[in-house]
Amino acid sequence: MRVLLVNPNTTVAMTESIATCARRYARADTEIAALNPTKGPVSIEGYFDEAIATEAVLELLIRHRGCFDAYIIGCFGDPGLFAAREIMTAPVIGMAEAAMLTACTLGYRFAILDVMKRTWPQMEDLLMRYGLQRRCVSVRAVEMPVLETESKSERVRARLIAAGRKALEEDRAEVLLLGCAGMSGLDKDMEKVLGVPVLDGVVCAVKMAEGLVDYQAFTSKINAFKPPELKEFRNCSDAIATIGKGRRHARIESKEED
Amino acid sequence: MRVLLVNPNTTVAMTESIATCARRYARADTEIAALNPTKGPVSIEGYFDEAIATEAVLELLIRHRGCFDAYIIGCFGDPGLFAAREIMTAPVIGMAEAAMLTACTLGYRFAILDVMKRTWPQMEDLLMRYGLQRRCVSVRAVEMPVLETESKSERVRARLIAAGRKALEEDRAEVLLLGCAGMSGLDKDMEKVLGVPVLDGVVCAVKMAEGLVDYQAFTSKINAFKPPELKEFRNCSDAIATIGKGRRHARIESKEED
Amino acid sequence: MRVLLVNPNTTVAMTESIATCARRYARADTEIAALNPTKGPVSIEGYFDEAIATEAVLELLIRHRGCFDAYIIGCFGDPGLFAAREIMTAPVIGMAEAAMLTACTLGYRFAILDVMKRTWPQMEDLLMRYGLQRRCVSVRAVEMPVLETESKSERVRARLIAAGRKALEEDRAEVLLLGCAGMSGLDKDMEKVLGVPVLDGVVCAVKMAEGLVDYQAFTSKINAFKPPELKEFRNCSDAIATIGKGRRHARIESKEED
Amino acid sequence: MRVLLVNPNTTVAMTESIATCARRYARADTEIAALNPTKGPVSIEGYFDEAIATEAVLELLIRHRGCFDAYIIGCFGDPGLFAAREIMTAPVIGMAEAAMLTACTLGYRFAILDVMKRTWPQMEDLLMRYGLQRRCVSVRAVEMPVLETESKSERVRARLIAAGRKALEEDRAEVLLLGCAGMSGLDKDMEKVLGVPVLDGVVCAVKMAEGLVDYQAFTSKINAFKPPELKEFRNCSDAIATIGKGRRHARIESKEED
Amino acid sequence: MRVLLVNPNTTVAMTESIATCARRYARADTEIAALNPTKGPVSIEGYFDEAIATEAVLELLIRHRGCFDAYIIGCFGDPGLFAAREIMTAPVIGMAEAAMLTACTLGYRFAILDVMKRTWPQMEDLLMRYGLQRRCVSVRAVEMPVLETESKSERVRARLIAAGRKALEEDRAEVLLLGCAGMSGLDKDMEKVLGVPVLDGVVCAVKMAEGLVDYQAFTSKINAFKPPELKEFRNCSDAIATIGKGRRHARIESKEED
Amino acid sequence: MRVLLVNPNTTVAMTESIATCARRYARADTEIAALNPTKGPVSIEGYFDEAIATEAVLELLIRHRGCFDAYIIGCFGDPGLFAAREIMTAPVIGMAEAAMLTACTLGYRFAILDVMKRTWPQMEDLLMRYGLQRRCVSVRAVEMPVLETESKSERVRARLIAAGRKALEEDRAEVLLLGCAGMSGLDKDMEKVLGVPVLDGVVCAVKMAEGLVDYQAFTSKINAFKPPELKEFRNCSDAIATIGKGRRHARIESKEED
Repeated sequence: MRVLLVNPNTTVAMTESIATCARRYARADTEIAALNPTKGPVSIEGYFDEAIATEAVLELLIRHRGCFDAYIIGCFGDPGLFAAREIMTAPVIGMAEAAMLTACTLGYRFAILDVMKRTWPQMEDLLMRYGLQRRCVSVRAVEMPVLETESKSERVRARLIAAGRKALEEDRAEVLLLGCAGMSGLDKDMEKVLGVPVLDGVVCAVKMAEGLVDYQAFTSKINAFKPPELKEFRNCSDAIATIGKGRRHARIESKEED
Repeated sequence: MRVLLVNPNTTVAMTESIATCARRYARADTEIAALNPTKGPVSIEGYFDEAIATEAVLELLIRHRGCFDAYIIGCFGDPGLFAAREIMTAPVIGMAEAAMLTACTLGYRFAILDVMKRTWPQMEDLLMRYGLQRRCVSVRAVEMPVLETESKSERVRARLIAAGRKALEEDRAEVLLLGCAGMSGLDKDMEKVLGVPVLDGVVCAVKMAEGLVDYQAFTSKINAFKPPELKEFRNCSDAIATIGKGRRHARIESKEED
Repeated sequence: MRVLLVNPNTTVAMTESIATCARRYARADTEIAALNPTKGPVSIEGYFDEAIATEAVLELLIRHRGCFDAYIIGCFGDPGLFAAREIMTAPVIGMAEAAMLTACTLGYRFAILDVMKRTWPQMEDLLMRYGLQRRCVSVRAVEMPVLETESKSERVRARLIAAGRKALEEDRAEVLLLGCAGMSGLDKDMEKVLGVPVLDGVVCAVKMAEGLVDYQAFTSKINAFKPPELKEFRNCSDAIATIGKGRRHARIESKEED
Repeated sequence: MRVLLVNPNTTVAMTESIATCARRYARADTEIAALNPTKGPVSIEGYFDEAIATEAVLELLIRHRGCFDAYIIGCFGDPGLFAAREIMTAPVIGMAEAAMLTACTLGYRFAILDVMKRTWPQMEDLLMRYGLQRRCVSVRAVEMPVLETESKSERVRARLIAAGRKALEEDRAEVLLLGCAGMSGLDKDMEKVLGVPVLDGVVCAVKMAEGLVDYQAFTSKINAFKPPELKEFRNCSDAIATIGKGRRHARIESKEED
Repeated sequence: MRVLLVNPNTTVAMTESIATCARRYARADTEIAALNPTKGPVSIEGYFDEAIATEAVLELLIRHRGCFDAYIIGCFGDPGLFAAREIMTAPVIGMAEAAMLTACTLGYRFAILDVMKRTWPQMEDLLMRYGLQRRCVSVRAVEMPVLETESKSERVRARLIAAGRKALEEDRAEVLLLGCAGMSGLDKDMEKVLGVPVLDGVVCAVKMAEGLVDYQAFTSKINAFKPPELKEFRNCSDAIATIGKGRRHARIESKEED
Repeated sequence: MRVLLVNPNTTVAMTESIATCARRYARADTEIAALNPTKGPVSIEGYFDEAIATEAVLELLIRHRGCFDAYIIGCFGDPGLFAAREIMTAPVIGMAEAAMLTACTLGYRFAILDVMKRTWPQMEDLLMRYGLQRRCVSVRAVEMPVLETESKSERVRARLIAAGRKALEEDRAEVLLLGCAGMSGLDKDMEKVLGVPVLDGVVCAVKMAEGLVDYQAFTSKINAFKPPELKEFRNCSDAIATIGKGRRHARIESKEED
């Protein structure tokens, strides 16, 4: 099967790094393509960054509709996830969503290891949206920018382990989530040190996508994720304008091919 | 005082119409400028439309930073509201938020009269985000596109009154919210027919903005709405790139003037 | 417009002091009358005090029905607010309610700076009643009686600043509410020190009342706040007995004039 | 043991009628005194009525402090319950609270059969305050005034049975609560007809009070229900003024005897 | 009246000890029989222990159906409570449930003093099931096995007092619950030391059972607790097989007598 | 990889039927063994049935510890799931849990198509335990015993389709869950008719198990799911007694092999 992994920021090194993690646990017959937009912020660390990154993610997805069996949004804020579900019938998985849902099967409560305290409200927003507040005991920030976590330096690792230990001891967490795609690849090492499951949402999303495709599952198009209404998108790119004009999505029989 | 009312869609007629409503209840010394982006959907009726409209709203706000005492986002999904608060110190009010908060002072529970059933999840998202689910008894859709409600035709009026009556009788609502900027101006007429408060969020936002400015209130910049981190926004407009480079916001002493 | 500000306790000095704060931010054309009952506790610091103060507040309101455009209850427990809405059609605003709703527009979460730990359950009750628990991160008490806070002494100020700082640093609050009418007037000074919005509910209520009157808004009389049923109030004051006998409220066409 | 049952309204016939119900299920060694204030509304059907009744209930309780082993407030809105707990160490039980807690042991979810639709928000307030919203599936009103339910006429009985049946069939209720002291005495007859537990809160409160007294239980005086702060109650009755001056409550060793 | 108190673990000494506590506060005319299964764990300290204990509890109850007026499950996890309600019409009370409901009448919020941190999720499960999360401020573990608490040694007492003090001071608890039947009997001593109500769920359950029997209350058989469907229980004990074959429960007229 | 699918009831035909469904969507390299206990009810339709089935499920799991890479509990009540997690390090998945988590990725809200109205409270319990109440709009029963649904007759299919349609139209569901293992295999046919995702929890659990094994995920043993405390299990089977005596689980390095 073919899966498209979209890194919503414009840092190519990060796209490559999460692709490597994704492929490490993908099945032999799963082909993972990884892309990032060329327009937008080099990292996403707040509401504004996320808002600006979203349009480019959606454009990129529109241009690859019909070419993949499933799509993954590889940023722990899941930017554009619900909008993407409107324009797709094939499964679209957010890495935060995948990490949270997977954690639910491995422990009573999980904690999120986040980049910065300032993005804690965005974590709250996601937990509410997914209805999982009760399962998350805490969000602990390492107070490092996304691009520094991406270095996977000893400093990053040490701070993550310290934050994880606090979550286990003070907050009664049982599973830890790496709250940024920049932290991808540190999961198994941290598990060895801390003795509890540590989840990389990129990997969780790949495994969930494979399962959904095997089961021939598709996004429900009945209400929240109905295709967008037909309308004019003024002064927008061709890709976006297409959505406003476009043929409705075929529902079950065929995957989207427009 | 000077207030900027942004209509997030690209339909100029609608911008004018909500400006008229806003000015009807504005104080004599409040000057209301109304603008809409020239890029984006002609109406907002789902997650995708909203995602595409958001960037243009933010650009427009950036270009007018420092020129107004308060800013209003005039679409009942409050697109870009939290991102806007990151880039502003002056108050930014969403029309849905304003309508919901105002309703809390006039009745035990309110109902939202929405355009389409498909946008009900977006209303849910807002209610959760604002923490007001308990105050909202129901969301009832008139099943008409935004641009048709904008016509304020007899058909629109009749459907709104019918939906409102159901909300009062079957859902125990006590206050009704017009769930779309296109419905602006129908409030007082509906109040006469239904005998309960009917709120236009555009007006609520104007009154709330005036109060906040009088009180010299400002957006808290300590955590959720801190100015965006400095970073590169690749291939973005100058306005957006400015934010990534830009001077930090002055906090209390001076309003943003960059 | 004319607004009646009721101080529910019987301390005249406090009535004058909150009236001064209210007038500081009122519009030029808003006339604020401030009154307190002559019967009841000199301060309100618990369920019993509040229960005893409530009847006198309601009597005072009954005697001034039809004379003002809006009414404000100036104690951070909002005593008698819902009962007052039953006997009024004009807007009635509680200072706690106004502070909480206003805070929602300025930050992700707020904290309340309360007088005593013992009144924390009453804050909880209010947050539940208004459906705003999710927006309040903490209630921190300065452990001083109401009448001491009213002194606005350096000791009061220092304790409030210390409690506020803890709320910002340990509880992730973004906006602070002065949880007692006795603290009125310390808002702007504390904002300077702490750098975040600090709200005085008396001022918030004035600004909200002005907005509601401008918008010709009124209390919904359809269910929760219907006028009281006709009945005998034995051995009660004339004012209260009137309510039991009284003419029903006119709904929209005319404000209450009895 | 000796229990004081307070009817918060001023209708003597109702006091007698609930006393009869209370005594029917009281133990042989439980003596039940029943009183009502002479000041206040003849029935309680809304926020205003309740606010006016509360002071008289508290006065009556103050005058009987130290004379009884437990106190019951016999109105389904539990007026003054928390204030009463401040001034008492002996257990004080509200009839709504007692009915709700008892229902929790007999079925998965309960419904309340209320007098009027208008008091539904007050039921909501109680459920929130007691933290029992999840256990209550619905509040159904018979739309009859309190004093009519007190007649226990065939019409009252028929409407209660009809509302109860709807709650069982449409709302999945498993236990029914008589939502007004006026309905006292209809429980067992309705149980025969409907086949499910039907609870009279007055009886539930008596049984709970007996249990608490046997167990030598007392109200926690540590925080929410600490004795009121010392202070002046201006122009209030001697009873109320006493509270403001009064000796602190003895905690465990001795019941209140002042 | 006759009450059966079931200790779900197989430690006879503990059965005797909780019987002694139960009888201390039982009425003179209440006869309490205490039994424990002979099969199962010697103590219950987790999900597995509880799952294994449950079947034996149910068997024991089946063998005594019709012989008692009420049944009590004497372990703070309430194992098998809802299953027991399916097979009984007479009241069945869990000691955790009884302690929690009783606490609601004595303070604003309670805390549970638990044996081990590992059983905290089970406490959470119970609080959710009973809908009482809002009333519980914290669960604090003394980190001692059940059978050690049963010794009531000075060490046990000291740890309980220390944990209780922390709950009162740091968590704002107002009532303390002994979170294990092994702690039975320490209530009144702890009350003397800590000055707040300390509840033994075994006693609470006895008092609640007496009240329910006096009131002729019974378990609702309409939905959640309907008698089990008729079916084969393969290779199960006669007692359990009986349930699958058995006569339906008589509902109100007669208590179960099969 | 090797997965053990346990059918908790004793009906062999049903074990075979769910094994067939599981294998239909399993990967080529996944070997699925399916077993059921020989002791216990032939179907599970209430709290009592479930309580009796649980011990046999746990015994069966103990006897196969170390032999499989993952374990699935194939009954929509997930009996014994948390107890099983205590005795396992390898992933254990419940079919209800798997269906609910999977549904979260395909639509805004799901509905459960349940066998009988009487098991609705058990669905509520699961939703609370998993923290997913907000994602579930309704539970609709087809009012047929488990063993009849297992027939997959036209009557079963028709009732499921009718219930599903109501959930979509009246409750705004977007994804449907087959709420009983007896319904396994009807998913894709129903999807064709109703046009929305219809999920069989057995398949969802297989796909989730495969993903977890690929990712080398394991159950967190730090708190809720720590191995049971060492203790005597009197008169229990050897398998169960082993747990009380047994060696602690190796944590990460090696899967359980005792």
